[in-house]
Amino acid sequence: MFFQRVAVIGVGLIGGSFSLALKEKKLCGHVVGAGRGRANMKVALKRGVIDSAAPDAAAAARNSDLVMISTPVSQFEGIFREIKGNLKPGSLVMDAGSTKRDVVAAARRALGSRLARFVPAHPIAGAEHSGAAAANPALFRDRRVVLTPLKENRKQDLDAIAALWSRIGARVSRMTPAAHDQVFAAVSHLPHLLAYALVNDVSRRRNAAQLFGYAAGGFRDFTRIASSHPEMWRDICVANGDQLLAEVARFSAELGKIRKFLVRKDAKSLERLFARARAARERWLNGEYA
Amino acid sequence: MFFQRVAVIGVGLIGGSFSLALKEKKLCGHVVGAGRGRANMKVALKRGVIDSAAPDAAAAARNSDLVMISTPVSQFEGIFREIKGNLKPGSLVMDAGSTKRDVVAAARRALGSRLARFVPAHPIAGAEHSGAAAANPALFRDRRVVLTPLKENRKQDLDAIAALWSRIGARVSRMTPAAHDQVFAAVSHLPHLLAYALVNDVSRRRNAAQLFGYAAGGFRDFTRIASSHPEMWRDICVANGDQLLAEVARFSAELGKIRKFLVRKDAKSLERLFARARAARERWLNGEYA
Repeated sequence: MFFQRVAVIGVGLIGGSFSLALKEKKLCGHVVGAGRGRANMKVALKRGVIDSAAPDAAAAARNSDLVMISTPVSQFEGIFREIKGNLKPGSLVMDAGSTKRDVVAAARRALGSRLARFVPAHPIAGAEHSGAAAANPALFRDRRVVLTPLKENRKQDLDAIAALWSRIGARVSRMTPAAHDQVFAAVSHLPHLLAYALVNDVSRRRNAAQLFGYAAGGFRDFTRIASSHPEMWRDICVANGDQLLAEVARFSAELGKIRKFLVRKDAKSLERLFARARAARERWLNGEYA
Repeated sequence: MFFQRVAVIGVGLIGGSFSLALKEKKLCGHVVGAGRGRANMKVALKRGVIDSAAPDAAAAARNSDLVMISTPVSQFEGIFREIKGNLKPGSLVMDAGSTKRDVVAAARRALGSRLARFVPAHPIAGAEHSGAAAANPALFRDRRVVLTPLKENRKQDLDAIAALWSRIGARVSRMTPAAHDQVFAAVSHLPHLLAYALVNDVSRRRNAAQLFGYAAGGFRDFTRIASSHPEMWRDICVANGDQLLAEVARFSAELGKIRKFLVRKDAKSLERLFARARAARERWLNGEYA
């Protein structure tokens, strides 16, 4: 498996790391990048994350054998429209979006006759650092990648994309877009929202400096994901709003239950809930759900 | 400064680490431990965390120059009563409780004429691992310790305790018990509650195995504190219930605001909130509030 020319649209942490990983494993020839931020593109070129920079997505896609779209998801539909007339026969298109129903819908609206060559993918490899400066060829090692295939996809294309991710160290699985969005609303999107909410809550108080002054390791780890890319998470929240709202409702109900335990100083129920959560987390850490 | 005989009541992560830190810095002669868990006390003796084990708190306190109480806080009042008749003249009592108004109130009720020699302290050095097995002499290095002095305390005793913590690497500050409980409700107790709530919420679903199966690094760090000691956190929640309820109310209002942004797909407001939270967290990480 080898892609002579790869286009990376959006050379951030994910797109940049994908490029570096392909290069490291000698799975590609030339990588051409396209992106909005001039300073970021300079960093990408200087670090060798990409070999050349194209002025726009259409130019990057032209003559490429594989096009990776790794911008915030609200830009996807426009990019699909830009590139669709510029794809050479046989080239594959893939994305790295964190939501999948909206991405698939945008592809159906915008990709026209090229739809069958688009393989929706979500590498589960976020980090609180963003941009080409943070790109790292090992980012996907032992991480999951979820493919949400279209019924139009050909088996050989799906297999090629799955093999590509495997070669750069990822564990590939498949889901429907709806199942994907439900799962990640619960274990990723909701925690991000809660972390952002907590930091925002603390930072807007009169005694914020004092509060931050005493925040320690627990707070640091809990809020790590509140240093994530605001634009990317804005798009995820809008694209997966319905599932995320359902998660917020569930979580609020859970918090309401705990609130009642606090009001009536129900030590037994609090301890039971804490012990159950700890035990579940330990099972998870021990790999029982891997 | 040197304490010939130190009693550690509750030889867990905090008490055990305190003992090891004193030993490392040669600040004590003999450390006697007391605790409920037989297996844990065996580990403590075997690892040299303590030099001997006493059958109960009163026996440990007898002839000790310093008594450190580091059990879950609901046990403090009983321990104060047990030890008060067994303290030798001039000995100091200290605690490591994560809440302070309740601890001070318990001391006032139970310590009688020994009250003035009790210095309330809270080392900010939790970890998700518990017990003597996790004890570590470096635990307090560069961590904060908050003293909440009583008006009855003598200056030389406060200075001695502050110097002791400094010698084992901690940064000591002072607050009122009320200010302490407000600050830690916001930056410690609430995040613990939210992490426990999230793990519990996920673990009780029909598709919990699938959800955990796709949970990644963000989830792991966000929920690290949900592996904390359930009994300890039960006691903290009960002792600081009023402040914690106020924090739950504030957080719920914040979450309600974000919920509205989601409902009306207000991308601009979401991004602004996320960007503000990220910027505040970066300022904190850069030490602007240290």
